Amino acid sequence: MMVTSETLQLTGYVQTIIDSLEQQHLKNIVIAPGSRSTPVALLLAQAAKTNDFKLYVDVDERSAAFFALGLTKTTHTPTLLLCTSGTAAANFYPAIIEAHLTHQPLIILTTDRPPELTNIGAPQAIDQDHLYGAHVKQFLQLPLPTDRQSVLEYVAFSVQRAYLASQQAPKGPVHLNLPLRKPLMPLLGTEKHPIAVEPIQPAPTVTALTPTALTQLQKALKNQRILLVAGPEETADDGQALLALAEKMNWPILTDPLHPLRAVPHPLVLTCGDRLLKATASNLTQLYPDIIIRSGATPVSASLANWLSAFKGPIYNLDPNGTLTDATKATTHQLAITPNWLYQHLALPLAPKQAALTTRWQTLEQAYKTLVAQTLATATLTEAHVPYLMAQHTTGRIFVGNSMPIRDFDDFYQPTQLAPQLYCNRGANGIDGVNSTALGMSAADEKPSYLVIGDLSFFHDMNGLMLAKRYPLNLTIIVIDNNGGGIFSFLPQAQATDYFETLFGTPQDLDLAAVAQLYQAVYVHPKTVAALKMALAAPVKGLRLIEITTERQENLNSHQQFQTAVDRLLEAHFAAKPS
Amino acid sequence: MMVTSETLQLTGYVQTIIDSLEQQHLKNIVIAPGSRSTPVALLLAQAAKTNDFKLYVDVDERSAAFFALGLTKTTHTPTLLLCTSGTAAANFYPAIIEAHLTHQPLIILTTDRPPELTNIGAPQAIDQDHLYGAHVKQFLQLPLPTDRQSVLEYVAFSVQRAYLASQQAPKGPVHLNLPLRKPLMPLLGTEKHPIAVEPIQPAPTVTALTPTALTQLQKALKNQRILLVAGPEETADDGQALLALAEKMNWPILTDPLHPLRAVPHPLVLTCGDRLLKATASNLTQLYPDIIIRSGATPVSASLANWLSAFKGPIYNLDPNGTLTDATKATTHQLAITPNWLYQHLALPLAPKQAALTTRWQTLEQAYKTLVAQTLATATLTEAHVPYLMAQHTTGRIFVGNSMPIRDFDDFYQPTQLAPQLYCNRGANGIDGVNSTALGMSAADEKPSYLVIGDLSFFHDMNGLMLAKRYPLNLTIIVIDNNGGGIFSFLPQAQATDYFETLFGTPQDLDLAAVAQLYQAVYVHPKTVAALKMALAAPVKGLRLIEITTERQENLNSHQQFQTAVDRLLEAHFAAKPS
Repeated sequence: MMVTSETLQLTGYVQTIIDSLEQQHLKNIVIAPGSRSTPVALLLAQAAKTNDFKLYVDVDERSAAFFALGLTKTTHTPTLLLCTSGTAAANFYPAIIEAHLTHQPLIILTTDRPPELTNIGAPQAIDQDHLYGAHVKQFLQLPLPTDRQSVLEYVAFSVQRAYLASQQAPKGPVHLNLPLRKPLMPLLGTEKHPIAVEPIQPAPTVTALTPTALTQLQKALKNQRILLVAGPEETADDGQALLALAEKMNWPILTDPLHPLRAVPHPLVLTCGDRLLKATASNLTQLYPDIIIRSGATPVSASLANWLSAFKGPIYNLDPNGTLTDATKATTHQLAITPNWLYQHLALPLAPKQAALTTRWQTLEQAYKTLVAQTLATATLTEAHVPYLMAQHTTGRIFVGNSMPIRDFDDFYQPTQLAPQLYCNRGANGIDGVNSTALGMSAADEKPSYLVIGDLSFFHDMNGLMLAKRYPLNLTIIVIDNNGGGIFSFLPQAQATDYFETLFGTPQDLDLAAVAQLYQAVYVHPKTVAALKMALAAPVKGLRLIEITTERQENLNSHQQFQTAVDRLLEAHFAAKPS
Repeated sequence: MMVTSETLQLTGYVQTIIDSLEQQHLKNIVIAPGSRSTPVALLLAQAAKTNDFKLYVDVDERSAAFFALGLTKTTHTPTLLLCTSGTAAANFYPAIIEAHLTHQPLIILTTDRPPELTNIGAPQAIDQDHLYGAHVKQFLQLPLPTDRQSVLEYVAFSVQRAYLASQQAPKGPVHLNLPLRKPLMPLLGTEKHPIAVEPIQPAPTVTALTPTALTQLQKALKNQRILLVAGPEETADDGQALLALAEKMNWPILTDPLHPLRAVPHPLVLTCGDRLLKATASNLTQLYPDIIIRSGATPVSASLANWLSAFKGPIYNLDPNGTLTDATKATTHQLAITPNWLYQHLALPLAPKQAALTTRWQTLEQAYKTLVAQTLATATLTEAHVPYLMAQHTTGRIFVGNSMPIRDFDDFYQPTQLAPQLYCNRGANGIDGVNSTALGMSAADEKPSYLVIGDLSFFHDMNGLMLAKRYPLNLTIIVIDNNGGGIFSFLPQAQATDYFETLFGTPQDLDLAAVAQLYQAVYVHPKTVAALKMALAAPVKGLRLIEITTERQENLNSHQQFQTAVDRLLEAHFAAKPS
């Protein structure tokens, strides 16, 4: 190759970007292949030979972006996402929106045509300026490659700054758009080059209440009956500080399936919230405390949200992002602080009336658990068995699909010593990109990884399975196959019988055995509880597909029968122990 | 169902939107199913019982949008694209960008959460305001449902106006965002309701030169040797007015594969442009006319574009959209008029020196055609055989994939009495959504429909095949399977041998027979020219998959050998007839 000054400029400039990311400890990189991105892709691949970059190449950019999201969710560090110019970049959009809503740090690097090829009819050129609109935390238009020192310093600093911003509250995706001219081939070497970029060290921060505010808060909480509501919390936090406080104060925790404590068996961790608070007959106000302390994102449970909405007392909302995205609008006190700081600094005497409230919730939790165990003590496999059995028979991590699966996990997933932590794309609650996000999760480390997903959502991201064929990833996918949109049977749409199957049921008649063949996955089709237990007991190696065939109407019936039993349980409880 | 005033308001309001579209002659509708879109989907389905709406339901919104694009490209009328709230809408983005760049009218109707559920942590709520940024022609935020007459009139008028705008130069996609509150079930009836919306009749328009400008133009063109360059033209126009003018004036036409004349065998229609103008040794300036008249979008051929760039004489650019998206930047005269008006109104005497230029081009065209015929007179099947044989053995329409296939069609697709018209997503030149766009094309009418596509592009939109399983669509897909990104073997990236397969070749080892099984397609795997001819002769019924296995290095070699032969052909030509 002839080495021109242009090639040297290009190489040095792109290497500066890569060095900047490496100095900030970037590790995971997902590349959607293409031409314009050539110098970045090649220099990343070259760097990966001597540093600890982990590279994944995915042809479908939509899947690639969700895979990056899954990696980021589990590693709690930014993933770099690279693509060429044109609609390739637009395919990233759904995953970027999800990352933005769930505060996941992604570094999106789109390569672009240079200015003189923009909006002029040049091939593979689209307007990439602010391509993701309001759905990224930052947009940075990088300058064209040059060897001018001041520009290189600006680029290094800007890339480092964007990397840091993606990780600082509110975390989120940042978009760098990089215009590149031909020739696109960089100079590749055999020796490691010296890194000229200095790392920028971020110091860990904690946002605390002022001493006065803490004193006031403690005064307000003193002698009050408190209930904790722990919403989705997909951060590096393991929930132990919250649990320690709850133990000290005997406060029960209504625990969302996406809170890490949902995997921790403990008498204060409650799983009965969704179903109990869905009961229509009973007077649920009897379950209210004096004060509620909330943390985390919007709970999965709509009935819990409604119950919070109707609460007349104070709700303290731990809101480290300062966004108050509280759809219940019931927050009365915003605590825009680091939650763990509060959990560690609250010092209160035990409230005398707390025990009665906590015991009532614990009694109900026990009765609920017994009811679940009785209901699921059948040989016939139902959708509810999946979360229930997985809590007992799997370890590691479970990614849960939206629509029905996450609701079933809310109701039937009970902590055990083994129980895996749960993950879900709960920002926009999409059924898109789920296979890829779960595969990204599985790539983070050696923990066993599972995905539980409905057939429509599985179909939506079937392309995502390709990465499992091309990389040594280990994921067991449990597909709840009720041949269509199971959730609509629960909704008013079910009344529109003339149009229901066409518009809402939408059966795809997906042949999962053929899909397994296409992606060289092991395929199992258990038809009984015992067979599912056996399938779950097998080690998670490579890609496995477990098909659970169910029937939408039967599923509706069994869910409704279970709710009737929960209603009765509550009625019996209140009849025995009037408030 | 209890009929509340809310339900009546919702029903009347949504029906007004549908009536407005129906009155403007909407016919094709693609629905990506979901919950928030329920009233629109149900009332559309109800309307389809008595009017001539054609409804398609596609679970994958990305495929759905490209399918709508394909319908619009072929019917030349707007297609309505409906989805629910959330990332569903973001999945439309790639197809919308393509529609915007190629001026295809799409009506995108995204349903949304009402204002009180926006940016507050409510499920399936994202910020849908200007979701597609600068990539739509119009964005309209519709008001919430109401029965207030003035609002209904505004909504009807605005929807009609948007529909009209999508079809007026420059045509393009329009985005309507519709917030809806629960309950989402509309009132469904059995009788056809009276339509209260009056249609707005658009009068056909023509943009002409002023008489003075026409006189000046004729003076400028008089006695000049002219060459026509007919670029991509995916409109309802059949090119006959252009051809009539060319015949009258004896002007040769360098015809892009995406111009309708590329399917018309005629001595003035030239197919040799790309390869001839790629020749390096010869002095190609000898092929220049005095004046070039261009029409259509950016030509597929890069060598043609370079040759235009280097032309020193006047280039008249027929630019009905007034956008001058001319990447060659060589336009010297903009004619922002209706091209056919000019073709019909130019009245010039025959230029005396025209015949020599035209004959030279025709001589070269004949020599080129002979060379192609000789080169492809083998029993062994190559990628170049596909366009060549399809021009002779198929009728109807062919959708051509980006990257290598469209380039091969440029070089080897020669008009015959049968030859199908060609289509391609040539706005952003993406390899995404191609299966779906081709299926949308096939749904337009009963014409036989084909798709020629590379394996990576085929993989990218495999989900698109689902519609062929669910609707009686007829498409034969010819997959050129060289197991990866064939085009990169032609590019400088091929030098980076250490990284080539990982980053650019990206073999997916796709088992096309397994894909065919999954989607219940007929699968054929011809290995010789004779076998391919036989496969092409079979009627296009249902979904058929024809796999053509090739090898990337061999393909590079045969393309390079062919170019060497073209170079020699030109050298011989100029040696025999020096300019």
